[in-house]
Amino acid sequence: MTSTSDPLLRRRAEALAPSYQLFYDEPVHLVRGEGVWVYDADGRRYLDCYNNVPSVGHAHPRVVEALCHQAGLINTHTRYLHEHVVALAERLGAMLPGDLGTCYFVCTGTEANDLAVQIARVVTGNEGVMVTERSYHGNSELVGKLSTDSYPEHERPDWLAVIEPPNTYRGPFRAPEPDLGAHYAALVDDGLDTLAARGHGISSILIDTSWDSNGVLVAPDDYMSLTAEMIRTRGGLVIADEVQAGYCRLGRNFWGHTNYDLLPDIVTLGKPMGAGHPVAAVVTTPAIAAEFATRRNYFNTFGGNPVSAAVALAVLDVIEEEALLANAQAMHGVLGDGLRELATRHPIIGNVQGSGLFWGLDLVADRETREPIAYADAKRIATGLRHRGILAGVTGRYTNVLKLRPPLQFAAEHAELLLTELDALLTGYVLQGGADARALGAEW
Amino acid sequence: MTSTSDPLLRRRAEALAPSYQLFYDEPVHLVRGEGVWVYDADGRRYLDCYNNVPSVGHAHPRVVEALCHQAGLINTHTRYLHEHVVALAERLGAMLPGDLGTCYFVCTGTEANDLAVQIARVVTGNEGVMVTERSYHGNSELVGKLSTDSYPEHERPDWLAVIEPPNTYRGPFRAPEPDLGAHYAALVDDGLDTLAARGHGISSILIDTSWDSNGVLVAPDDYMSLTAEMIRTRGGLVIADEVQAGYCRLGRNFWGHTNYDLLPDIVTLGKPMGAGHPVAAVVTTPAIAAEFATRRNYFNTFGGNPVSAAVALAVLDVIEEEALLANAQAMHGVLGDGLRELATRHPIIGNVQGSGLFWGLDLVADRETREPIAYADAKRIATGLRHRGILAGVTGRYTNVLKLRPPLQFAAEHAELLLTELDALLTGYVLQGGADARALGAEW
Repeated sequence: MTSTSDPLLRRRAEALAPSYQLFYDEPVHLVRGEGVWVYDADGRRYLDCYNNVPSVGHAHPRVVEALCHQAGLINTHTRYLHEHVVALAERLGAMLPGDLGTCYFVCTGTEANDLAVQIARVVTGNEGVMVTERSYHGNSELVGKLSTDSYPEHERPDWLAVIEPPNTYRGPFRAPEPDLGAHYAALVDDGLDTLAARGHGISSILIDTSWDSNGVLVAPDDYMSLTAEMIRTRGGLVIADEVQAGYCRLGRNFWGHTNYDLLPDIVTLGKPMGAGHPVAAVVTTPAIAAEFATRRNYFNTFGGNPVSAAVALAVLDVIEEEALLANAQAMHGVLGDGLRELATRHPIIGNVQGSGLFWGLDLVADRETREPIAYADAKRIATGLRHRGILAGVTGRYTNVLKLRPPLQFAAEHAELLLTELDALLTGYVLQGGADARALGAEW
Repeated sequence: MTSTSDPLLRRRAEALAPSYQLFYDEPVHLVRGEGVWVYDADGRRYLDCYNNVPSVGHAHPRVVEALCHQAGLINTHTRYLHEHVVALAERLGAMLPGDLGTCYFVCTGTEANDLAVQIARVVTGNEGVMVTERSYHGNSELVGKLSTDSYPEHERPDWLAVIEPPNTYRGPFRAPEPDLGAHYAALVDDGLDTLAARGHGISSILIDTSWDSNGVLVAPDDYMSLTAEMIRTRGGLVIADEVQAGYCRLGRNFWGHTNYDLLPDIVTLGKPMGAGHPVAAVVTTPAIAAEFATRRNYFNTFGGNPVSAAVALAVLDVIEEEALLANAQAMHGVLGDGLRELATRHPIIGNVQGSGLFWGLDLVADRETREPIAYADAKRIATGLRHRGILAGVTGRYTNVLKLRPPLQFAAEHAELLLTELDALLTGYVLQGGADARALGAEW
């Protein structure tokens, strides 16, 4: 740890709850950022290959300007009229397929997913919810229950169905077996049967089409449409949790669900929407929103305030003007090719998975058995990258997946630097294992 | 409605969910604010006697400057080290009694109350929660259930105990009867018995010591300590929901619970904390936080980010430097005296209740029977004030209470203007009644 951070670390342990975790045993003390770069208190520069929240880059001047301009005018709530929240809702609606265009604004992805499930339950009259194993959808009482790695398995509520994610490298059905989409979708049907046997109908399935917490997966092409059909046949709604997959993250399309030709009933937005500012949203159809309004009141004091809306509009402006979707698509090729090339030389890389600007390297102790490396080794590798000036993360059910998810401005020169440092680190890296127990829900 | 707002209103109805409500049949379209003043799109100025969220005044330059400065540097999450979040936690801890000093930062009062109840349930092992009739504590699935006016009564969960608030003007026990505190606290014990009969222990009671949604009440002095004792005897925790009552709102003390010599187990903060910026917190004791951490993971991506923390620190700076607690206390006298004087001349004012910069006028059709005026009349009065350039609200179980809750910078000259306009409006006001049904949870 840097010496300047020592006293701060001690004060932090005193004042913040022990639930707070820090990345790295020697935490990084960030004081400044610009584009894909961040700087610590000692002036050291890091290439940010981890943070999707500053989606359009750290401290983007255009976003900061929009924030400051509106904050200098007025910040109120939606019970007075204001242009910004309406303009934002219209713009999101125009970007979404079908008649998804009726918006609720909230402050966090947690609030968005919590409201989405409330809507689904009220509208369907069913209680059941389906998520994948080691899902993460947020931290409220309700959504925390949908985040299956945040609490002990025996505390799972009986209205919760937990299914295997479509992990075609490590799951029960693996490439190149045929009909992988159908096989994984059949697990959805099994989950629905299990719920029914417990007396619960299905209100909704939450799907993060980046399968971030599962290790950054790419599902078989037909998996989502088959899954959606099964859910709808039993009267449930499909919630696309775009907190991770949305905002160009997966390349090719602005939304993750579009990559799978899926038309969701409800879409939830979060992290990248405000490039760090707490703004999030739920978008659904007019019919679903109308039905919900007959049964429930909903108001969110900060949600959709003029400042948050101005920030969210500025983020969309930057994405358009800087052609960041095209960049994510270009990086899909550059990073995908580069990581696969590394895999040809480093047997620790069992699988390269992901797309656009979101990649996972499933790291293995043995390529044949696909035995995951120990959490302690995954941490060592991420820490090694940190000492080489690269911020990355660890994810996946076995916390053995190196997670790369940089801001959308990430360019070829940054990819080259990342690949060079990763190559150097893995060259001669010897697995050490270790019984470093992972805390509940620790992302790494 | 102003002509410039017509098209916006139509667009809004298209793009936002029907759950969204607007104040006034002819909504106010605000575009700018400064101190206690706000301005609409047509340049009309209003004295803000309603909004506590812009606690230190609209668009306070010092708060805006702190926001812009930090947003221009970096906005990250708490998994990297940063000074601001630690400084904010230390400062809040130093302002709170006992060993309340272990902080969690979140983005909204809803998230704060949701987390507080999660903590109480995990730590006590009990499921039951107690709130007052027509409580409002937020909008997540869990906290929405604690907001008893947001959904039909028959849907109340069996772990919820709902008690009569200490309304000494309109409730079952009324001034000047003796032992009012003990009478109301006995209802808490009854509620605990009811929970026990349903098989539920008590995890916590949530107490808003401004009783905002109940009509802005002042409890008997001993009510809170008696209540806390009953809750603790059965193993429950006391959560002071300071989203409304905190931040000098009630005068005399920074926190509402201090007015009642109450030492809570958990304190939740929200609305005024960021003067409009979405920042909120849960503060508890080291022992409770430690126990929670052994059973649950908790992380909030946006919670405690450097920008939100900088804003929250600036709000505390302004409160200190502008001596806003002393101002709230001074206004306690000015507004209280002024409103009571109005009551001597206007029989529609059944009761003047509240303190500091938070007052409710319980408006009655008949002073003897205390029959509340119709919601339609309350709306007409608030609307009349709007046309006189004063923003106010309506609250209370019978939505007959005129709610006055201005920014903390509200001064004697503003009080005089409010009192003058209210006097003029009530002079000759004839009750019209009306069957204008109030929507579920409409505070307006």
